[in-house]
Amino acid sequence: MIEKLVSRIKKLNAPIVVGLDPTLNFVPKFLLEKAINEKGETLEAAADAIFEFNKKIVDAVYDLIPAVKPQIAMYEQFGIPGLMAYKKTLDYCHEKDLLVIGDAKRGDIGSTSTAYAIGHLGKVKIGSTEIAPIDADFLTINPYMGSDSVVPFVEECKKHDKGLFILVKTSNPSSGEFQDQKVGEKAVYELVGKKVDEWGLDTVKEGYSDVGAVVGATYPEMGKVLREIMPKAYILVPGYGAQGGTAAELKPFFNKDGLGAIVNSSRGIIAAYKQEKYAEFGAEGFAEAAREAVIDMKNDIASIF
Amino acid sequence: MIEKLVSRIKKLNAPIVVGLDPTLNFVPKFLLEKAINEKGETLEAAADAIFEFNKKIVDAVYDLIPAVKPQIAMYEQFGIPGLMAYKKTLDYCHEKDLLVIGDAKRGDIGSTSTAYAIGHLGKVKIGSTEIAPIDADFLTINPYMGSDSVVPFVEECKKHDKGLFILVKTSNPSSGEFQDQKVGEKAVYELVGKKVDEWGLDTVKEGYSDVGAVVGATYPEMGKVLREIMPKAYILVPGYGAQGGTAAELKPFFNKDGLGAIVNSSRGIIAAYKQEKYAEFGAEGFAEAAREAVIDMKNDIASIF
Repeated sequence: MIEKLVSRIKKLNAPIVVGLDPTLNFVPKFLLEKAINEKGETLEAAADAIFEFNKKIVDAVYDLIPAVKPQIAMYEQFGIPGLMAYKKTLDYCHEKDLLVIGDAKRGDIGSTSTAYAIGHLGKVKIGSTEIAPIDADFLTINPYMGSDSVVPFVEECKKHDKGLFILVKTSNPSSGEFQDQKVGEKAVYELVGKKVDEWGLDTVKEGYSDVGAVVGATYPEMGKVLREIMPKAYILVPGYGAQGGTAAELKPFFNKDGLGAIVNSSRGIIAAYKQEKYAEFGAEGFAEAAREAVIDMKNDIASIF
Repeated sequence: MIEKLVSRIKKLNAPIVVGLDPTLNFVPKFLLEKAINEKGETLEAAADAIFEFNKKIVDAVYDLIPAVKPQIAMYEQFGIPGLMAYKKTLDYCHEKDLLVIGDAKRGDIGSTSTAYAIGHLGKVKIGSTEIAPIDADFLTINPYMGSDSVVPFVEECKKHDKGLFILVKTSNPSSGEFQDQKVGEKAVYELVGKKVDEWGLDTVKEGYSDVGAVVGATYPEMGKVLREIMPKAYILVPGYGAQGGTAAELKPFFNKDGLGAIVNSSRGIIAAYKQEKYAEFGAEGFAEAAREAVIDMKNDIASIF
């Protein structure tokens, strides 16, 4: 799967991913009002509004980007109807030929990780029929429980040509509380990075592994160290833009070939119309504002090479 | 919320929770065949079969136990229909006056953790209407991302009188890979345990906090250490039975008052009919076998006091 992502990144010259994280604060009022008029103040109305919001953004940006990253929490907050909107969003993105990174940060004991892997990436067998329940292309994984919680995901990826991004050093302010603790000479995130390299070793295709890593843009020095520890891992970099990471700080995450990292922006793109910079578009023009913000992000990142 | 759990544990003299983790391997064939006859080899059929399975087990054991713990991965593996069965199971357990521990091991950056917390434990506002999307009583949480990924859950618990169990030392064989690493004198799991104690401090009611911990039955020595580090935390103990933990090994997880821990068994109960010990019940008697296994587990644990 990673080679598909790399080929699209090269073709579009865009190592970027748009985070489809639609909280109701980002959805323009007119969209929610329309849905409430049709379905009342219900979870179903919220789910309709966020799907409609996603669809218009995808329509406006799909030709510019290789992938999207829906954050499943933003859908789980609307219960079952929200999760239906997650699945509809994923299917719609596939129709538009986008790769989908499901941002779910799952992880559990072995047999349970297998169930998550089947649900999100693989196929479940019912009678003699195999069905892909969610069918994302990549999934984010939390490694706190160790190898036997991660390897079932790797195995499922091998079966169905899918990929992973494993949390190594996250973008949030208190990520250091456990991740930065020093174990002898090394920090916990370095130990995790070393494992990410190992877990992915036999999935390397054209220089990169199906087992990638998540390292926050807000920690460029650690990004540099991790880039060396995990030379084959694609790094998914959150934290650019709204969380404070700048383009200059992204350079350490890339390899010398200009590859090796893909940078996420969520609210910086999908809620661009709320920024002064894109205010001219207005709420009605939220999707066009998102397109403009993607082009600006692409140029901003291109400037570092 | 924790005081409700404690009061039920005392009343029933049963510090046990039944894990409702219905893989299709555990569901008797006749139940799946019936569902497939009605809905074909579909996710909907699998979801119907696992809900029917859960319902019969709950009917057989609800008067013996304070709580159930559905593992959401086992439902996510059947996509949206599976998640609908999760929600239906949860609602049915509430009808039977059982507390529900959603075993989801969620955790993310602050605003995203808030979305998970709202979805699983809290209420989401749509227009002027507040709706509880899933409405579990407790949720399990992965702390790898640090305090700002955990505190939003604690805040949501305070608003809606709910509780948490935070992964500290998990029951799986490779849990030590990161959790046991020594940071100076202390292991990572001890640092996490210390934080669990802190996160819960202002939610203590009648001796225990709404912020509990997960510590595997398979690591009793560590359970002893953690029991002292987190005196107010209820410990949810997985790994008893099928994963190898024995009753004698459970003692260190309890306080001197006989409280402070609740022991989970999943396949040991719900798939009891597959064990030689309960073979007389047959597949048709799977629910009665589960009841018998709950009674045996209750007696087994009572024997350590």
